[in-house]
Amino acid sequence: MLTRDACTALDAQDPLADLRAQFDLPTGRIYLDGNSLGALPRSTAPRLQQVVTQDWGQGLIESWNTANWMTWPQGVGDKIARLIGAAPGEVVAADSTSVNLYKVLSAATRIQRLAQPAHHVLLSQRDNFPTDLYIAQSVCAAAGWRLELAEAAAIPARLAAGDVAVLMLTHVNYRTGALHDMAALTAQAHAAGALAVWDLAHSAGSVPVRLHAADADFAVGCGYKFLNGGPGAPAFVWVHPRHADAAQPLSGWIGHAQPFNFTTHYEAAAGIHHYLCGSPPILGLAALDCGVDSVLAAEPLGGMAALHAKAGQLGDLFMRLVDERCAGLGLDAASPRDAAQRGSQVSLAHAQAWPVMQALIAHGVIGDFRAGVDGDPDLLRFGFTPLYLRFVDVWDAVETLADILGSRSWDVPTFHARKAVT
Amino acid sequence: MLTRDACTALDAQDPLADLRAQFDLPTGRIYLDGNSLGALPRSTAPRLQQVVTQDWGQGLIESWNTANWMTWPQGVGDKIARLIGAAPGEVVAADSTSVNLYKVLSAATRIQRLAQPAHHVLLSQRDNFPTDLYIAQSVCAAAGWRLELAEAAAIPARLAAGDVAVLMLTHVNYRTGALHDMAALTAQAHAAGALAVWDLAHSAGSVPVRLHAADADFAVGCGYKFLNGGPGAPAFVWVHPRHADAAQPLSGWIGHAQPFNFTTHYEAAAGIHHYLCGSPPILGLAALDCGVDSVLAAEPLGGMAALHAKAGQLGDLFMRLVDERCAGLGLDAASPRDAAQRGSQVSLAHAQAWPVMQALIAHGVIGDFRAGVDGDPDLLRFGFTPLYLRFVDVWDAVETLADILGSRSWDVPTFHARKAVT
Repeated sequence: MLTRDACTALDAQDPLADLRAQFDLPTGRIYLDGNSLGALPRSTAPRLQQVVTQDWGQGLIESWNTANWMTWPQGVGDKIARLIGAAPGEVVAADSTSVNLYKVLSAATRIQRLAQPAHHVLLSQRDNFPTDLYIAQSVCAAAGWRLELAEAAAIPARLAAGDVAVLMLTHVNYRTGALHDMAALTAQAHAAGALAVWDLAHSAGSVPVRLHAADADFAVGCGYKFLNGGPGAPAFVWVHPRHADAAQPLSGWIGHAQPFNFTTHYEAAAGIHHYLCGSPPILGLAALDCGVDSVLAAEPLGGMAALHAKAGQLGDLFMRLVDERCAGLGLDAASPRDAAQRGSQVSLAHAQAWPVMQALIAHGVIGDFRAGVDGDPDLLRFGFTPLYLRFVDVWDAVETLADILGSRSWDVPTFHARKAVT
Repeated sequence: MLTRDACTALDAQDPLADLRAQFDLPTGRIYLDGNSLGALPRSTAPRLQQVVTQDWGQGLIESWNTANWMTWPQGVGDKIARLIGAAPGEVVAADSTSVNLYKVLSAATRIQRLAQPAHHVLLSQRDNFPTDLYIAQSVCAAAGWRLELAEAAAIPARLAAGDVAVLMLTHVNYRTGALHDMAALTAQAHAAGALAVWDLAHSAGSVPVRLHAADADFAVGCGYKFLNGGPGAPAFVWVHPRHADAAQPLSGWIGHAQPFNFTTHYEAAAGIHHYLCGSPPILGLAALDCGVDSVLAAEPLGGMAALHAKAGQLGDLFMRLVDERCAGLGLDAASPRDAAQRGSQVSLAHAQAWPVMQALIAHGVIGDFRAGVDGDPDLLRFGFTPLYLRFVDVWDAVETLADILGSRSWDVPTFHARKAVT
């Protein structure tokens, strides 16, 4: 059996341990929800203070030029590109993941209407994150396409049927943390005449992503999870250069080739720039820039590969300790046992997942609850952000979990009561 | 002839004068560009500091519940509703003006496809702000409609032709500040079987807006101009309750009736709530909330009517002083002389508007330049935000303008050089 001291020793040897000092973390809590909202980098508050009081307050309108605000979507995008296997100039930070997905799916329908006019199926995974499915439903309705949902294992066979126009997947599953093989699935999609659209919400800043190496077609992702950009941070969008001229329908003035010529007719800017729409959200971009920097700080220490490896070790430790200490207490692993098949999260099924999670939170272990739909189980979800989590945190979290389950202290009305959840 | 002392006396009698103390303004500058980027309220920086360090940094994911983040789009929307003649629960703050315009125009096409299937024209004004025209082009292409642009005076006759599905206008023209009669044009649109979509970018927080009294159908607006929400602030959207069930295509999870049930099929939330799409941009909403509060602070002093009256007096004073002191120096008024026909801005045409504006900025008078297209003149644009501008500022600005034009000090290579502009 492992001991707490052994976990402390793992932290002492951890080459990534110093990255934790980048963050302001609440005392007395173990934060295992960085997959939902990343922690606050220490650089963010002073940066925002500077942007607000100096750039905006003193510079006012001139800061669009003097502080280069207009270039921030590309500037932050270039940093994100380093995390996802894209090239400089191919990514912009803008809008929300949902809005960006609407842009790329709409562009994909325009491409495929010409390239594969007989393909009318948008294929996705049954337990993909709901907003992806909702946006896909809207795009399919407009295009006269059909949205089909398959279990992960059935996707290759469904592709082979030959009528899929677009395969849209989230790289890391939001419920289970299961990681798709982006290169293999993209190749299968291409072989079937389909385009591959990837949502990197749970993989950007969490696992190595190699968009060009996988030959992906489009990607979107989220700024407020593993990129630590803050609540509701701007999202990002990437388009393979071979598709960069495909029109997308949110043709706002910031995506115009010459926005300040004020011409009446839209002329799309080159490359990824026409995926910009409205004026850049400067406060959100400043915070996102700090968050992305907190991930890029791992570059000299092995970058995303090192971060994912540590996340895997944290998750492996968690699963091992849960096996050892919570046996017979109603938990079932809902995530892959092989860390190479997982993002930076581990989920556990429990019939009383809601009150158990409320009890954990009350005891300072912050994970989250995800309701099961379509027969899937309710889940306890735990994110293992390697930038700021320690092995000893994992020990302490499992200790609390074992205590709560063993004592059934979750089974009181307070913890059963439902409230708004995120 | 007026004197500077007379202007100082006007400030001493101004019942709105104390509102200026709400803002952090740079010293040594006269800021006449609040129509492009509003000034910084003193409350914004501490509010953001609290949201970042406490709500996000300490509260982390729990702040979605404990700080009620999920309700902020409605909360800020309810405050904006007070400024635009809408009811509580009818407005949300979200996304950008361009994205919101895409939502409402798309909804309008769905309504009119059934209600007026023979109407295929989206009518707008030739010198409407470009992003409105660009978004309209995209929506028209998808709907099989035609975008037609008319001069303001020709709009009633064009409506009467009977094939217009949607009239889309910006309430206050971005170039000239000319104010449309929303009630009259909406009535003419309805009489012709058209819906009326209003962009309030230059009127929310600037002129009294009465959406219900005018019986408007849809409205969008900008958070970073007269609402003082900061660079790239979230925008807002209003839908008349009779249209609230009309589907809009950006069907993201935050607009779902039960987002945290994680069901695979989109079911639109009731009312304005399904005009939300992605996760709320909390930092931007916090700053926008402070900005809207800075306008609502005028409510006990007469509210929007009092603010617009003062803006009119500031603009009238500006035009009078320009007439007196800049006669024969190449300026032509490009805004209505009647303050009741103007928003909170005055524009002046000049053949060398670019270098003249650069010289003004170099001398601490901050307006902006707007290029003329389609034969329109290049403009010097001056915003008169009554919340923080004084009559004496107008005097000093005209003094600087008269000096620059009289001495031709604008006519040097430095000021002719073009750079990126906003």
